[in-house]
Amino acid sequence: MSETAARKAVVLLSGGVDSTTTLAIARNEGCEAYALTFRYGQRHSREIDAAGEVARYLGVARHVVLDIDLKSFGGSALTDDIEVPKGRGLSDIARDIPVTYVPARNTIFLSFALAFAETVGAQDIFIGVNALDYSGYPDCRPEYIAAFERMANLATKAGVEGRPFRIHAPLIAMTKAEIIRTGARLGVDYSLTTTCYDPSADGKACGRCDACLLRLEGFRQAGMEDPVPYTYKG
Amino acid sequence: MSETAARKAVVLLSGGVDSTTTLAIARNEGCEAYALTFRYGQRHSREIDAAGEVARYLGVARHVVLDIDLKSFGGSALTDDIEVPKGRGLSDIARDIPVTYVPARNTIFLSFALAFAETVGAQDIFIGVNALDYSGYPDCRPEYIAAFERMANLATKAGVEGRPFRIHAPLIAMTKAEIIRTGARLGVDYSLTTTCYDPSADGKACGRCDACLLRLEGFRQAGMEDPVPYTYKG
Repeated sequence: MSETAARKAVVLLSGGVDSTTTLAIARNEGCEAYALTFRYGQRHSREIDAAGEVARYLGVARHVVLDIDLKSFGGSALTDDIEVPKGRGLSDIARDIPVTYVPARNTIFLSFALAFAETVGAQDIFIGVNALDYSGYPDCRPEYIAAFERMANLATKAGVEGRPFRIHAPLIAMTKAEIIRTGARLGVDYSLTTTCYDPSADGKACGRCDACLLRLEGFRQAGMEDPVPYTYKG
Repeated sequence: MSETAARKAVVLLSGGVDSTTTLAIARNEGCEAYALTFRYGQRHSREIDAAGEVARYLGVARHVVLDIDLKSFGGSALTDDIEVPKGRGLSDIARDIPVTYVPARNTIFLSFALAFAETVGAQDIFIGVNALDYSGYPDCRPEYIAAFERMANLATKAGVEGRPFRIHAPLIAMTKAEIIRTGARLGVDYSLTTTCYDPSADGKACGRCDACLLRLEGFRQAGMEDPVPYTYKG
């Protein structure tokens, strides 16, 4: 019997809707997935747990959780004690660079993904960035992804030796509703995912932070019920 | 009295000859320096101590030591227990990508430097890579540095808002002898620096690993005595 080696792919996995859907897409394309999650001073280790459950549910070859220190630099609501904005309009969310912006975050994430990929011999890296709902983040745009890929292929032994890396951002042009519909079609159980920037002690999503608002609107537009519990569902 | 704010710069500092000289160059250009050192499973915390001494000696505004985990991926003599090559010829060192190559290492380092720079409001990032002595490392070449800079300016709020980052690699075209002469002219005390991949228990450089061979040859060609102690000095 002959065996065909599966295409290996590193997938950045936070345990939210987007990265979970991205992992489902990579798996659906037949990739053997190496999931990579970061513990970076998020307020809630619940996110790490969610990523672990998602990784098990979707079946990965390996799941690495890396500690990285973004606190030593300061500067964001997701790592500092800046107030997370609540109850903004959806149009405000898309317009500005949010206070939840973390300097160079996706660049740091992709750099580790690149190291992981070269180490396990993967040429494909998947990241669940999305340019539509979060146009405010500069590191969620196609031109950024293309520039990272180009840099990656100059940076690495694999790249210069003719085994180039491809950075896949399959959600980049999708609405949140399209992302959710895609994931649902691929069998994603969104009850395992976590999104809220500021959940209650018993793990309910707040329903009012930017992330909750975008998620709820996405499920609404997809015509689906969001299976996670909320404190407030506007 | 009016005050002119000094130009802020993030400088990657390992405590070796190259990064120390790079910090001296940044300081000589009048930069207020934010030094960044990584603890990444090197065998010797001596390197971290050296970086701290160098930072104090050359005067920095802040010195951040970050823990990063490259061990979870495996794959290099500097983080694993692969044998460090000893007693090679200088021509062998320059030709191959060394086993001490760490996948995406400079990309990870520069990504954190970028986050640090954006957080403190610096637009200048200095890295002591050198394309001549270590032509084997893909992430020490000018085209890599240029691609990283381009990516960085698409990745960040500062970049897209017109405060572009510049990645400076002032040593990139220098020989080791030129680097050492430059540093000596700028008052660097090289007895504070550390280079060896495999020092003895009492802190003497081995004199036979690639890093020692390049260092010793550099001092020789610069017509200077290397002030650090060696077990073997060929």
